[in-house]
Amino acid sequence: MLVGHRTWVYENKPVIISTGTVGGPFEANGNIPNDFDILHDNMWLKQDSFEKSQQKMMEEACQVAVKNSSIQKEQVQFFIGGDLINQITPTSFTAKTLDIPYFGLFSACATSMESLALSAFLINGNGADYILSGSASHNAAVEKQFRYPTEYGGQKPPTAQWTVTGAGCALVAKEGKGPVITSATIGKVVDMGMSDPFNMGGAMAPAAVDTLETHLRERNVEPSYYDLIITGDLGHIGRHVSLDLLKKEGIPISEDQYVDCGLTIYREGQPVLAGGSGAACSSVVTYGHFLNQMKQGLINRILVIATGALHSTLSVQQKDPIPCIAHAVSIETGSDMS
Amino acid sequence: MLVGHRTWVYENKPVIISTGTVGGPFEANGNIPNDFDILHDNMWLKQDSFEKSQQKMMEEACQVAVKNSSIQKEQVQFFIGGDLINQITPTSFTAKTLDIPYFGLFSACATSMESLALSAFLINGNGADYILSGSASHNAAVEKQFRYPTEYGGQKPPTAQWTVTGAGCALVAKEGKGPVITSATIGKVVDMGMSDPFNMGGAMAPAAVDTLETHLRERNVEPSYYDLIITGDLGHIGRHVSLDLLKKEGIPISEDQYVDCGLTIYREGQPVLAGGSGAACSSVVTYGHFLNQMKQGLINRILVIATGALHSTLSVQQKDPIPCIAHAVSIETGSDMS
Repeated sequence: MLVGHRTWVYENKPVIISTGTVGGPFEANGNIPNDFDILHDNMWLKQDSFEKSQQKMMEEACQVAVKNSSIQKEQVQFFIGGDLINQITPTSFTAKTLDIPYFGLFSACATSMESLALSAFLINGNGADYILSGSASHNAAVEKQFRYPTEYGGQKPPTAQWTVTGAGCALVAKEGKGPVITSATIGKVVDMGMSDPFNMGGAMAPAAVDTLETHLRERNVEPSYYDLIITGDLGHIGRHVSLDLLKKEGIPISEDQYVDCGLTIYREGQPVLAGGSGAACSSVVTYGHFLNQMKQGLINRILVIATGALHSTLSVQQKDPIPCIAHAVSIETGSDMS
Repeated sequence: MLVGHRTWVYENKPVIISTGTVGGPFEANGNIPNDFDILHDNMWLKQDSFEKSQQKMMEEACQVAVKNSSIQKEQVQFFIGGDLINQITPTSFTAKTLDIPYFGLFSACATSMESLALSAFLINGNGADYILSGSASHNAAVEKQFRYPTEYGGQKPPTAQWTVTGAGCALVAKEGKGPVITSATIGKVVDMGMSDPFNMGGAMAPAAVDTLETHLRERNVEPSYYDLIITGDLGHIGRHVSLDLLKKEGIPISEDQYVDCGLTIYREGQPVLAGGSGAACSSVVTYGHFLNQMKQGLINRILVIATGALHSTLSVQQKDPIPCIAHAVSIETGSDMS
């Protein structure tokens, strides 16, 4: 099951039997509105704080995933997830509402694939029959915590990214219909000394390349094995940096094959600077858009490399560089996709 | 391997081949100084912030654990851990120093056993040969973040607890000499509506009881199966609340058999109010004190129930109750303890 030093191959092929994706008004106006199960027309969802609005979206994503399956919520053994808010309170409060045993995680925007890799491992090793795996973020809650309240109207450089408002959840099972999870490569913390919190894509690119290079070597496949290699939220800057690094390392990858969730979710003209980001970015785009493409037969094998910047406002104020990580999970067409 | 709904029995019996425990001056002056590998005589460890001091302790705990084993750091596949600081930066920076693939977790003070349960599952299922599993906290860093800087000298009610300055780490392996990890029960979020951040023990007690009751039922053992049932950081108040709840539920448990890490680490007379707490509390006391007792043949079977309060300063300010969780792991004498 462990191949190489940090890659798992799941011989029992856990299945994503259903998903739930929720977005806000900015996402509704974006590039892939039809790939969301629920879209909200305002940022509040009738809650009295943005953090509770994020919690509500995570609850909805989990509820939709269960509703879209043939099982009952009571059959789910574990909820595994996290988010960007201090002490991941929106995720913990979701675990309370769901009333499902809970593992809290933190890998910033790489949490989606940290969660999916662990969920698949637990299912593969008979640790559970059903697991809900997810991540969420909220633009206004994250801006308030990491930068300024959005009402302040703070200006940003063009390297900055736009935090996705949304939540994405996958219901992973031992057997059933749907795409299967075939392997995962766990990230190392990579830190190239970058300390600008307004250029996260650039900081995270080397982590994505390190995980991709390790994955290809340890799983012993060529990049062409995958129809798409999908990064989490590198944005324009990070994508270019990582393509340069891949070229330098002699890894043959075509530009068409190498896509980014942060560049998929919004359309041209939306003021998202270098692209989308946030813990929800890779989960909503993967579980919504790319799994839909897979169900439609347009693609058969994807590798999702979720990227995370593991800093805090305090670590940036204390002049620490931004430690980054990337976790990769491969998802492939199952024998029964109907 | 899954018995009941949320209990795992590890049939391959992962081994804790070595441990590392680090403490600060308050712990050096406490009840169990001989159970620490390293004790520091000040809170700074020559670092320029308390967060970096915490990071340094976590690095030391991991380094000591590797040094106390017969393996090299390069043989360790994963580092799994977390802490209480926003975005768990001290743990992520430790992962960078260690240069080991990393899973970041957050379950507040229950992180120690969340990490040990997952580490044992990954080892048991051939996902790794060696994993470093740990948690850390620092009194001054946590006080500054959750309450007031310690220099302010804020007064506290007698229900409050004292955050442990320290780090505890276990090196978990497929085979080797040492105590074995036999089972784990994963916690649910339990919230009885308590919202006083100065009475965490009282808030966490129902979560500990819920996990203990579930563990006994799903593993199908009596409390007397264990020499000790050890809670993480309930302190005086939480211990009494939980003993009352256990009595009410008709679970036969003797007071001598039911101990708390937060009441073990400090001696009578230290001004720790209701007892010790913090993410390091259960990890240093378990990996130091109780595993030493096991090696000396004084005890053979323990169940460690780490308890966590999953609130943030923001969730308390927003008048949310404190959601709590408890994860339990059983550790038993191995066939070869020399």
